[in-house]
Amino acid sequence: MPFTMRPVRRNAAARIVGALAAALLSASAVHAQVTAPPGALTVASPDGKNVAGVGVQDGHLAYYVQRGGRWIIQPSLLGFAFRGAPALRDSLRIVGNERRSFDTTWTQPWGEVARVRDQHNELRVTVEEQSAPRRRFVLAVRVFDDGVGFRYELPQQAALGEFEISDELTEFTLADNARAWWIASNRPRLDRSEQLYSSGPVSTLDSVQTPLTMAMSSGTQVVIHEADLVDYPRMFLAGPRMEGRTLRAALAPWNDGLKVRGRTPFVTPWRTIQLADRVEQLAPSVLGLKLNPPSRIADTRWIQPQKYVGIWWGMHLNTMTWSSGPKHGATTANTRKYIDFAAANGFRGVLVEGWNTGWDGDWIKNQNAFSFTEAYPDYDLRGLAAYAKSRGVGLIAHNETSGGIANYERQLEDAFRLYQSLGITTLKSGYVADTVGGGQSHYGQFAVRHHRKVIETAAKYGIMVNAHEPIHDTGERRTWPNMMSREGARGQEYNAWSGDSGNPPEHETILFFTRLLAGPMDFTPGIFDLMLASSGRPRTPEESRPRTTLAKQLALYVVLYSPLQMAADLPENYANQPAFQFIRDVAVDWDTTRVLDARIGDYVAVARKAKGRDEWFLGAITDEEARTLDVRLDFLPAGRRYVAEVYADGPGANWRDNPLPVAISRQPVTAASRQTLRLAPSGGVAVRIRPER
Amino acid sequence: MPFTMRPVRRNAAARIVGALAAALLSASAVHAQVTAPPGALTVASPDGKNVAGVGVQDGHLAYYVQRGGRWIIQPSLLGFAFRGAPALRDSLRIVGNERRSFDTTWTQPWGEVARVRDQHNELRVTVEEQSAPRRRFVLAVRVFDDGVGFRYELPQQAALGEFEISDELTEFTLADNARAWWIASNRPRLDRSEQLYSSGPVSTLDSVQTPLTMAMSSGTQVVIHEADLVDYPRMFLAGPRMEGRTLRAALAPWNDGLKVRGRTPFVTPWRTIQLADRVEQLAPSVLGLKLNPPSRIADTRWIQPQKYVGIWWGMHLNTMTWSSGPKHGATTANTRKYIDFAAANGFRGVLVEGWNTGWDGDWIKNQNAFSFTEAYPDYDLRGLAAYAKSRGVGLIAHNETSGGIANYERQLEDAFRLYQSLGITTLKSGYVADTVGGGQSHYGQFAVRHHRKVIETAAKYGIMVNAHEPIHDTGERRTWPNMMSREGARGQEYNAWSGDSGNPPEHETILFFTRLLAGPMDFTPGIFDLMLASSGRPRTPEESRPRTTLAKQLALYVVLYSPLQMAADLPENYANQPAFQFIRDVAVDWDTTRVLDARIGDYVAVARKAKGRDEWFLGAITDEEARTLDVRLDFLPAGRRYVAEVYADGPGANWRDNPLPVAISRQPVTAASRQTLRLAPSGGVAVRIRPER
Repeated sequence: MPFTMRPVRRNAAARIVGALAAALLSASAVHAQVTAPPGALTVASPDGKNVAGVGVQDGHLAYYVQRGGRWIIQPSLLGFAFRGAPALRDSLRIVGNERRSFDTTWTQPWGEVARVRDQHNELRVTVEEQSAPRRRFVLAVRVFDDGVGFRYELPQQAALGEFEISDELTEFTLADNARAWWIASNRPRLDRSEQLYSSGPVSTLDSVQTPLTMAMSSGTQVVIHEADLVDYPRMFLAGPRMEGRTLRAALAPWNDGLKVRGRTPFVTPWRTIQLADRVEQLAPSVLGLKLNPPSRIADTRWIQPQKYVGIWWGMHLNTMTWSSGPKHGATTANTRKYIDFAAANGFRGVLVEGWNTGWDGDWIKNQNAFSFTEAYPDYDLRGLAAYAKSRGVGLIAHNETSGGIANYERQLEDAFRLYQSLGITTLKSGYVADTVGGGQSHYGQFAVRHHRKVIETAAKYGIMVNAHEPIHDTGERRTWPNMMSREGARGQEYNAWSGDSGNPPEHETILFFTRLLAGPMDFTPGIFDLMLASSGRPRTPEESRPRTTLAKQLALYVVLYSPLQMAADLPENYANQPAFQFIRDVAVDWDTTRVLDARIGDYVAVARKAKGRDEWFLGAITDEEARTLDVRLDFLPAGRRYVAEVYADGPGANWRDNPLPVAISRQPVTAASRQTLRLAPSGGVAVRIRPER
Repeated sequence: MPFTMRPVRRNAAARIVGALAAALLSASAVHAQVTAPPGALTVASPDGKNVAGVGVQDGHLAYYVQRGGRWIIQPSLLGFAFRGAPALRDSLRIVGNERRSFDTTWTQPWGEVARVRDQHNELRVTVEEQSAPRRRFVLAVRVFDDGVGFRYELPQQAALGEFEISDELTEFTLADNARAWWIASNRPRLDRSEQLYSSGPVSTLDSVQTPLTMAMSSGTQVVIHEADLVDYPRMFLAGPRMEGRTLRAALAPWNDGLKVRGRTPFVTPWRTIQLADRVEQLAPSVLGLKLNPPSRIADTRWIQPQKYVGIWWGMHLNTMTWSSGPKHGATTANTRKYIDFAAANGFRGVLVEGWNTGWDGDWIKNQNAFSFTEAYPDYDLRGLAAYAKSRGVGLIAHNETSGGIANYERQLEDAFRLYQSLGITTLKSGYVADTVGGGQSHYGQFAVRHHRKVIETAAKYGIMVNAHEPIHDTGERRTWPNMMSREGARGQEYNAWSGDSGNPPEHETILFFTRLLAGPMDFTPGIFDLMLASSGRPRTPEESRPRTTLAKQLALYVVLYSPLQMAADLPENYANQPAFQFIRDVAVDWDTTRVLDARIGDYVAVARKAKGRDEWFLGAITDEEARTLDVRLDFLPAGRRYVAEVYADGPGANWRDNPLPVAISRQPVTAASRQTLRLAPSGGVAVRIRPER
């Protein structure tokens, strides 16, 4: 039974059945207050507010977290269960500990912020079994001002060589029944991260994904996630389902049920607990970055954030096809048009989907469908690569694998070498399949190994990666800054065709504080034809279509961070659209980021400074409710004069039946200015602030 | 595969795998608009706004619902699967139809409203299989101004005699991805209806309970539930889990997996779809009442709403026990005190738990633990019944069954006869067990039969019933008005001891629009000792305790309707408390009810007129956010002068650390008055409006 020290006042067996009840009743404390394990070792954040503790009680190892002297994570179990060996959980004792402090600041090649300071205090606790086989491990705990990370380190030892982990026993017992924003982890189809969010108390959670964002009744924000996921499965969380506050690590399995195959020396990913007093302080999230190793790429000048267009949306609207035939999107002629359009508008990339053979026939079920080097006859890969280059634009290669890992890895080097030879420096990959590699989970150790292999191979060939249906972001973009962006959540494409009406107006206001805390998302904003008339006829509000105003589509370029941002619509839908100027102007790389005002599920207003430019961008979005937000521009340097180019919802705009009106205006502003942002139902405001000329 | 006509624009196999994809693609309509089955028969509500239709397409029977010309429920499958017989679902055709209209108004012996008007149009469609065995059934559809109800009627026929239903195939395909407030139906412990609510889009729902309250993006409110549940299992709903908008009926099973055992002639419960344009119009909900048969009790004068106190909360605080011993709550002396307290305050009932033998030992696991006639030696049942009567108070008998149905039914007549002989006219029952009757579901046909038996037997002996861990309310209080109230949701007791910190501040604002739409709830408000100091020491905000202000506890008497309302705290905690006067004054039976302002999960303000008195009561509650509500008192008769006795959160009050301050004031008011209600965090306002003397 999992160990949990819970402050439960269990009255009578009246409400509890079973062994757990007996155990709790025998504890007999009438009003059990939560206490740390006796003699627990503690480590604090540099500012002293966050404290993590590690101790042993009754032979069980537990950790806990407090902030400002109040419980956040109450003492919670640690350990492992093995196949073919006893669990590493009982009869443990602490045999040593070590402390370190660290303070370094580095510059990212790209990001929401240019510089990141990693300042932390670390406690390393050596733990050993009290009796044979006396296996030992280290629990490393790092405490930062913005949260805590801990991981297990299994040193090489006679008693533990090769191993098979059947379960990681880590628990997280929340100090109160916090309200969580969650997506389920037990939905078997396709990429289950492509779901809409729900909210509810921790006690009701069943099986959920991370980042898991929670608000305690005190207002403290707690986000559970992981960092530096290498050669290990992804961690989901199993919840209490009906009553209680304990979440348990639930690793994604191999198809034989095992979780981890490894050998010592071995380290797990960091389990991270990000903390903030207010929701606005959750973003930009850098805790995960600080827990990943420094960059392995010495010269990153070839790694360039970019805006791109693509032969892609037309297929989601069914006006083009991936497969060959009369509506084939990836033709030489069509691609030249997109290259010209990109060049004319300063976009650096052109994504082309459906260029390579394999799309004809049932590619979802055929793990060997695709060639990643052979183009369709009507697609002149070499010619187009050269033409793009001549116009200052790069083709973005598309590798849909349909989960066929063996087929992909077999061709990986040849494909990347080919792309490099053609000057192709960006790749979008996909894993549209229920399982990968012949029956393995998208999220298990097998898939994690594969995705790392792709990133590292891509780096060898100077290729930036944008992975769809990916392993979720755990901060590896610090180590491999060619790992630019991912999908791994429900994006714009669902607005084209989903069977449940597209994304609701609140969707992006939730994404910002959940999915986007892990890392960049290739959401693909910028749809201007919001009634989707270009698909055949304008769609009604009940049918699938983007449920936003046009101004909100602009704001998303600022709100939903990605170093690769798509102007997602068909080029013809941008013609004669003054609002398109914002997409031309918006930056994709940032010095600083600040959330001005927000409420999860309701609205977000964020300001970012363009890297290397005296320009700021402000984006605000709302859910189905119209809102007026009053924000201060005190992020601007004092004493300078700027012009705010404002793109706001026009008079009478609303997502349902009048999404298109955009009011464009200019105003002089300074650091002392206030800006009133009036947002329509599912509306937005996008602002570019540049120096007065 | 379930039949659903879905307006899905399925682009390519890109997003769909499996047979479903093939079926949808073969439909080939590029932009399929939803259409009714050709030749569908329709029936409208008296005001013409709601329309239900029934038709056949490809041999499948489907129904649909529209309001104001817009889709609410798109064409959705109907039918049954049987064990040992083919499904009644395919190759169907309509062979006849009949129409009726109905308009009657009746007076309830008690309720949220005194009079209910049942005005509806009914369409009865006779359906038959096209080939042998040519089974036939009638789909009866009634359309009201406030919603739709439909049920299956299986007439006696050679081709269908005894049957075993393995699944009811009824579906509900929502016209858009409405936002639902839900509790899960697949949590196996105890009474799974005792959960906290979550919210999220229909597409993410897994297995949920009814009433299921949903808001469409247009603002239309849709509540799915059932009515007149007799000799059939309870209906849960199975959701799309990840994508889609179709909910499927999921009946609670017998322990052998079968759903329904029956024989023709047979009718199912009504499946109800309540509709409203705004959330304030959802309550008071009377749709279910209209679909239950008229009262079977001729003379209802013995059925009396009441306020009660009880030996109960002390056990949840662990200052008393159910079991015998030094802390036994149900003693003669203690009960006399409660009788005196009730008499002094005009409360008509005294509940005594732990009076009967069986509480010592492991009663949860012992299905034969309890006697319902034998009292403990320290409880003088006869003497106390007489004493109560002499003081104008009635004892409330308590029958905790621990799920031991056989043991209970064996003693039922004897116990009820005994209670009647002692002048005991109210019963609280309980079913604290994981299963009932030796392994059956709390919610299946077995339990439904048992609960009906209890209600009918109680009526025979003039006993009113308050059932805890019950079958959920489906309106049978119309037919059996001795069926007063139930638990069947998470109530106040969880604030004493739950392992997840008690109920969050928003809880009651959600209950009002979900659980309370089915029928009354014995929530047991009125806890004044909000830090629970009487349990030993005051509890901190993280520990389990009521997470409300005192004024909110008062407001709950008006907001959460029950004809049986408990003053739940220990009598000593009401001493010297001016706020207690509101509980003494508040009515428990109503002429009319009107929701003044509300948002599910945020706040509720409701006004009710006391039956037979020139008095109104107003209750307003909020979640963790402080709010100011401005309400009009135009429900008062014009031209008369009233006094409003207002109990509001005092200065500085908030649930966390200062829940007790109550500001009591008096103001003259009339129908033209406006009232500003200032609610603290998890606060409330309770108002009694009486004629100026």
